[in-house]
Amino acid sequence: MISQKWAKLIKSLHLKKFRKAEQLFFVEGEKAVMEVLASGWPVKALFGTADFLGRHPDAAIAAELAHPCTASELEQVGTFTSNNAAIAVVELPHYAPFAEQNGDWVLVLDQINDPGNLGTIIRIADWYGIGHILCSTDTVDAFNPKVIASAKGSFLRVKLHYQPLAEVLGKVRQPVFGAYLGGESVHQLQLASSGGFIVLGNEANGISNELEPLISRRITIPAFGDAESLNVGIACAVIVDNLQRLSSTE
Amino acid sequence: MISQKWAKLIKSLHLKKFRKAEQLFFVEGEKAVMEVLASGWPVKALFGTADFLGRHPDAAIAAELAHPCTASELEQVGTFTSNNAAIAVVELPHYAPFAEQNGDWVLVLDQINDPGNLGTIIRIADWYGIGHILCSTDTVDAFNPKVIASAKGSFLRVKLHYQPLAEVLGKVRQPVFGAYLGGESVHQLQLASSGGFIVLGNEANGISNELEPLISRRITIPAFGDAESLNVGIACAVIVDNLQRLSSTE
Repeated sequence: MISQKWAKLIKSLHLKKFRKAEQLFFVEGEKAVMEVLASGWPVKALFGTADFLGRHPDAAIAAELAHPCTASELEQVGTFTSNNAAIAVVELPHYAPFAEQNGDWVLVLDQINDPGNLGTIIRIADWYGIGHILCSTDTVDAFNPKVIASAKGSFLRVKLHYQPLAEVLGKVRQPVFGAYLGGESVHQLQLASSGGFIVLGNEANGISNELEPLISRRITIPAFGDAESLNVGIACAVIVDNLQRLSSTE
Repeated sequence: MISQKWAKLIKSLHLKKFRKAEQLFFVEGEKAVMEVLASGWPVKALFGTADFLGRHPDAAIAAELAHPCTASELEQVGTFTSNNAAIAVVELPHYAPFAEQNGDWVLVLDQINDPGNLGTIIRIADWYGIGHILCSTDTVDAFNPKVIASAKGSFLRVKLHYQPLAEVLGKVRQPVFGAYLGGESVHQLQLASSGGFIVLGNEANGISNELEPLISRRITIPAFGDAESLNVGIACAVIVDNLQRLSSTE
């Protein structure tokens, strides 16, 4: 069973301020929990159903501490409406401040609010081999349980840095691309070299005025129909796909 | 206010069987309701807050019947947790069965279950000028309120046809592209001509065995990193973007 003390702790970790205070977050569901255990990230506690622990005897060893519990207990403390597998409580990672590497593509998120969008963007970064995401300090927290759920294990490989964006972008050497309406078409771009920063703006308001002077190239996904806009996760995927295509064929 | 009779009707329209029986669906929120009214689709009833009706006096005329009500009434009968604007009850459209047009790109959805994914795909189709989507008969219903919400007005322009896919694809002349792991990279494709069918499979199981022999070209989004997969909406956007790029530059 999940003790009162652990139940209270896990429930508190739904909120950023308690994740920060405790330096912990949690991961839900069979696949993500198995990925965390395999990753070597420090797991403080593992709660699993008898079925889950029976099928993964190694999981208990990897976690050092495994507590058998019921699916309903997992659902009570976590965010999944259905979880008949496990929850792992994990230490928050600490990344070095962002440092520019020539040739790397870096995503820059300017106040992304929706956790599902952030999770999707982390998964896209992982697919396209982007190791670092710069986030404005008001972007939704990467260890929000909904971000973790939609990032599908990719949060283990992509590093998110929450830093004042204008300060960082003011000092970089590589080009800074910004997604705008009415910029250069990503189908016709010419790149002098691979690598740079790709700025994506807030879901409703786009890129903030403060960052505008720091954008060196405005780029756009060409429209062939009548939709007004694309979701920020979709726009991210299409832009990154085009930039990686151009980088890899040059 | 929303009368008991209307409240009961709108609540019933959350479910496909009542939408089918009544031949009605509903649209929520200021932007989508205004788009429906502008589209000329037959609106059977409009429920709006005093504020909404005051700001859009023409809306009441366009709808013929406008009922003032409160935000809390809108939230009780609809699906939005917050709606201080309007709900429109609209007649279901009837589209002619799908007919192939040379040169057109057509999306084919093989058992897409998640309403958010379907809505996103409808919006992508609209952005890229794709007018028709073929859906397996077990794909989530296009007039599900969550699909309507995530399609953002694009459901007014893109026609969805629910038909047995194997039957339709067995008779088409243009190439049938299928999204698989390990197919031709969409970055390196050569197209003999523009147009064809783009088959996207179920979120968990991919393209069904029944359709496999009907796929003439297997295509893949190249991976540069370690993520196992991409969400079906993301995959749809990247594939369509590449095919439209290749079609428009030939």
